Amino acid sequence: MVRETEIAQVLCMKEGTAENSYSKTAYTQRQILSMSKSLRENVIREFYRMEHPTTLCIADLGCSSSDQNCLSGVLYGLIETIDKARREFGHGGPQEYHICLNDLPGNDFNTVFRSVTSFKEKLKQEMGDDYGHCFVNGVPGSFYGRLFPTNSLHFVHSSASLHWLSQVPEEIEENKRNIYMAKTSPTKVINSYYEQFTKDFSMFLRCRSKEVVAGGKMVLTLPGRQNNDPCYSKDSAYMWEYLAKVLNDMVSEGYVEEEKLNTFNIPIYTPSPSELEYLVAKEGSFALNDVHTFKVSSWDSNDDHKFGCSIDGTNRDDTMNLQASCMRAVAESLISSHFGEAIIDEVFRRYKEIVLALLAKEKTVLTNVTISLTRRERG
Amino acid sequence: MVRETEIAQVLCMKEGTAENSYSKTAYTQRQILSMSKSLRENVIREFYRMEHPTTLCIADLGCSSSDQNCLSGVLYGLIETIDKARREFGHGGPQEYHICLNDLPGNDFNTVFRSVTSFKEKLKQEMGDDYGHCFVNGVPGSFYGRLFPTNSLHFVHSSASLHWLSQVPEEIEENKRNIYMAKTSPTKVINSYYEQFTKDFSMFLRCRSKEVVAGGKMVLTLPGRQNNDPCYSKDSAYMWEYLAKVLNDMVSEGYVEEEKLNTFNIPIYTPSPSELEYLVAKEGSFALNDVHTFKVSSWDSNDDHKFGCSIDGTNRDDTMNLQASCMRAVAESLISSHFGEAIIDEVFRRYKEIVLALLAKEKTVLTNVTISLTRRERG
Repeated sequence: MVRETEIAQVLCMKEGTAENSYSKTAYTQRQILSMSKSLRENVIREFYRMEHPTTLCIADLGCSSSDQNCLSGVLYGLIETIDKARREFGHGGPQEYHICLNDLPGNDFNTVFRSVTSFKEKLKQEMGDDYGHCFVNGVPGSFYGRLFPTNSLHFVHSSASLHWLSQVPEEIEENKRNIYMAKTSPTKVINSYYEQFTKDFSMFLRCRSKEVVAGGKMVLTLPGRQNNDPCYSKDSAYMWEYLAKVLNDMVSEGYVEEEKLNTFNIPIYTPSPSELEYLVAKEGSFALNDVHTFKVSSWDSNDDHKFGCSIDGTNRDDTMNLQASCMRAVAESLISSHFGEAIIDEVFRRYKEIVLALLAKEKTVLTNVTISLTRRERG
Repeated sequence: MVRETEIAQVLCMKEGTAENSYSKTAYTQRQILSMSKSLRENVIREFYRMEHPTTLCIADLGCSSSDQNCLSGVLYGLIETIDKARREFGHGGPQEYHICLNDLPGNDFNTVFRSVTSFKEKLKQEMGDDYGHCFVNGVPGSFYGRLFPTNSLHFVHSSASLHWLSQVPEEIEENKRNIYMAKTSPTKVINSYYEQFTKDFSMFLRCRSKEVVAGGKMVLTLPGRQNNDPCYSKDSAYMWEYLAKVLNDMVSEGYVEEEKLNTFNIPIYTPSPSELEYLVAKEGSFALNDVHTFKVSSWDSNDDHKFGCSIDGTNRDDTMNLQASCMRAVAESLISSHFGEAIIDEVFRRYKEIVLALLAKEKTVLTNVTISLTRRERG
């Protein structure tokens, strides 16, 4: 059983600037950020129209080590939005921005911090010296606990992070040869996964309810499902099913002990919109303003263009390398801490082969859910 | 000429947990922290007696990557002091602590962040669950610029950091074969060093004056001089003189180009108490409450006991290794960026030899100045 503190120690996106690092491979995440951009920026603009605190405090939870996902990908757009609104609404002099970047203590904050100076220079260059001041902090810790002082946040953003559970669910020993909720998983296993998500997401809301000011906003995006069948694999779980197939093959061939595979489960949950609505209402501190479901498919012909590579022809192999690297950046720390480092290269060589074969037959998509919330007045 | 942005990129204490890393070698710094402990804790206790904000915000500027210098060495004692005072003064329920750890963006924040969880656990264990909440942030950036929102800090601490200048002083080309202010340095060079310190320290005060609340406190310790002779080497400059001797020897022997040495100058300044008093009064935002000068000598017989090694007998060599490692952790990044990495091992092998020979003849000390300041009411 992997407990919360252990997950916090083990789980980290591959650090730095290495070939398979998260910052170099998180293409899908960037596409998701692009899809949620207009909602996120409309929400902060509306908040700023009503309130305009001397210092606007924005937190990005699960920022990872990628500048392109975090400072350039999210925060630049938010600050640009406020800066335009400030001029439009005549809200007076320079604005102070207090940016808090959170991730688990094992995250590679050094890489993020080394891009802070150029980020601030870009803000000045693009918006002029009078845009104000931007203060960037790193906040190490699990967002399933308190991270910020009471009443200190105006806007909370999180993308592609809240599906990670605080621990592997309890009582899922029967989930043999699966590594996630699969069609062949017993009902008890599915229920345990849902219960763990319920507990974690409610704790997340409870902690943030202390930290976000009344009227403050949260825009949260996470991989989810379109419908209420928790094992509907077409939404996102297929990625883990491919990985399960690789590991099962390696058990059959004697590379991996069966017992090791039986005790390996990925601590994630991809909720449906209605599950999120229910949990937000039940916790009660936040009003739900908006629920938006969308799909991304990084590797179809439209997107190929965006990322400078083509699924057809000679670049197809590069594309598969990228998808395999993405998965590797995310899952390597979990797999190597459970199975040992020796099998890692072989696991991802096989994973790449499977992805290549399956993508030739069908187009894969990743379903995401974005919710927008407002902190209610404290009663 | 090394400019500010370059210093900020180059200057960093050697990272992580490697043999010569700052966190493993900063013994002298720990001794300094121990000497300034009672002043620091009295000041924060007095602040808390008068004010007791819901969230008490403490910044440590120039925190380095060493947990023992930062979280365990300074912040634990400050929080313990407040916790005792809270019970003594009956200031009510749990206290929130917002801890901001600052250093240059090249600092190894990852190492600091990996000790945050155990730091928080220790607080709970020692002070009980009702002590409150402690939120730890990392803040990358130069303290010669704005780092924090307006009116956000209650207590600022800095130790062994403010003697680092933002850049090598201008117009010191005549400081040939010296690497710092030495007895043979021309007056013009001495003046340029003083002017750069004046400019930097005043900018430091100006930035902090925006960030510290009225009535807020600063306790700053830096290596300094007892008297007004800027080249009085017995205080602290001797360490750099030893290094200059090594580099000059290596020039004579053809290992290092003379031109390279002529353009190498260490960007530090060790002020006298009266220089600090003058600059604080001139800037005007802070009242100076206290000036305290003290000496540390890590390697005399009393201290040997503390650090588990003896200057006499068989452990003498370990001791010299430590002192050379200390210097190396601090100076390696500057030397290797100017002279190249190839000479580093040889420089510090020779440095260790010189230290060994000189310490046999005389006891060396490091003079430090601690000042305690209060932010005046805004007029």
